[in-house]
Amino acid sequence: MITVALPKGSLFEESIQRLKTAGLDFSGFLEKGSRQLQMMDRSGQARGLLVRAKDVPVYVEYGQAQLGIVGYDVLRERQPKVAQIADLGFGGCHLSVAVSSDSGYQSAVDLPPHCRVASTFVNSARQYFQSLDLAVEIVPLSGSVELGPITGMSEAIVDLVSTGRTLKENNLTELEVLYDSTARLIAHPLSYRLNQDGLSQIIDRLRESAVGVSP
Amino acid sequence: MITVALPKGSLFEESIQRLKTAGLDFSGFLEKGSRQLQMMDRSGQARGLLVRAKDVPVYVEYGQAQLGIVGYDVLRERQPKVAQIADLGFGGCHLSVAVSSDSGYQSAVDLPPHCRVASTFVNSARQYFQSLDLAVEIVPLSGSVELGPITGMSEAIVDLVSTGRTLKENNLTELEVLYDSTARLIAHPLSYRLNQDGLSQIIDRLRESAVGVSP
Repeated sequence: MITVALPKGSLFEESIQRLKTAGLDFSGFLEKGSRQLQMMDRSGQARGLLVRAKDVPVYVEYGQAQLGIVGYDVLRERQPKVAQIADLGFGGCHLSVAVSSDSGYQSAVDLPPHCRVASTFVNSARQYFQSLDLAVEIVPLSGSVELGPITGMSEAIVDLVSTGRTLKENNLTELEVLYDSTARLIAHPLSYRLNQDGLSQIIDRLRESAVGVSP
Repeated sequence: MITVALPKGSLFEESIQRLKTAGLDFSGFLEKGSRQLQMMDRSGQARGLLVRAKDVPVYVEYGQAQLGIVGYDVLRERQPKVAQIADLGFGGCHLSVAVSSDSGYQSAVDLPPHCRVASTFVNSARQYFQSLDLAVEIVPLSGSVELGPITGMSEAIVDLVSTGRTLKENNLTELEVLYDSTARLIAHPLSYRLNQDGLSQIIDRLRESAVGVSP
């Protein structure tokens, strides 16, 4: 039987919808007050695991789930050994460099060498500034990175931006986009190649569900 | 002026209470619907920053906060360069090895070599199994580690236990305690030595607030 790892958070509800379109009904996870972390789909074809977004690729990499839905940002940051199967085209956002709006910086290369950049995307941020040949100190935070410039801890941040509301509320301006991100369908490489338990049929139906949908 | 980094989550409310006893009133953070991440205390002596528990030592290490309250578990796992000033005696919990209740394992050394152990406390878990000279593979998760044994991804987990409710609900049994944890008062080392802005007075009052309180 196939196991699908589903991400908690912003991609959760649309992931459930897409799987439903593809014949796997995990809408029980959406029921109010549900604390379940795993359930069978209503047709009994597959099991769903509800995990943190960052953990989706871990379950897929270790073969505990054959399929998973996760943002490209997580894949880019963590580089898990999973097969990236399809761009599902929803959950669009981008990873950006932002600074305090009154800082006067116009682009990332204006930042002073050895300045601090706060981020939860430590690897992506490091790679980006290395590509600019700009030596900065990455301050690893686990959340609320917008506090970096507000408290004076960092000159800049590297963070995910979707609506831009958090930046605006904190008087921050986007300088550069590192990359765009959308929800991706991932698979355990060996299960995918061996077409374990009819995996390819489910994948085809999920691919179809993404066609014609604007990101 | 002094800045105090306060942890979101389980230590939050008691931290506010202790600081109030010590003369710093940040109870505005407790107001319903408050989204503020920083505020002045009511006497205007200090600024409070509300951050993720794991980020408290980051703000203190980088000197953006002179004081912070955080669980010993975070300090032990991340080894930040901060001065550990006092055990505040609340928020007691422990980091434990747990296994499925029907696994038959009686102690950590019963675990098979090269088995998988899921944890968010990757460093603490690695050090513990190295001290037992037991080679295990640590699977790094960001949450819901109790799913490890349920899904068969891991034989065991290393996780924080406070009431034991999560273990019980997931049919897991504690085998070993790695260490006990309580809330700690931490300070920026240089600010502490230089007694910046009367830091030692606040520290003394916080120490007094911990006396006679059972952990």
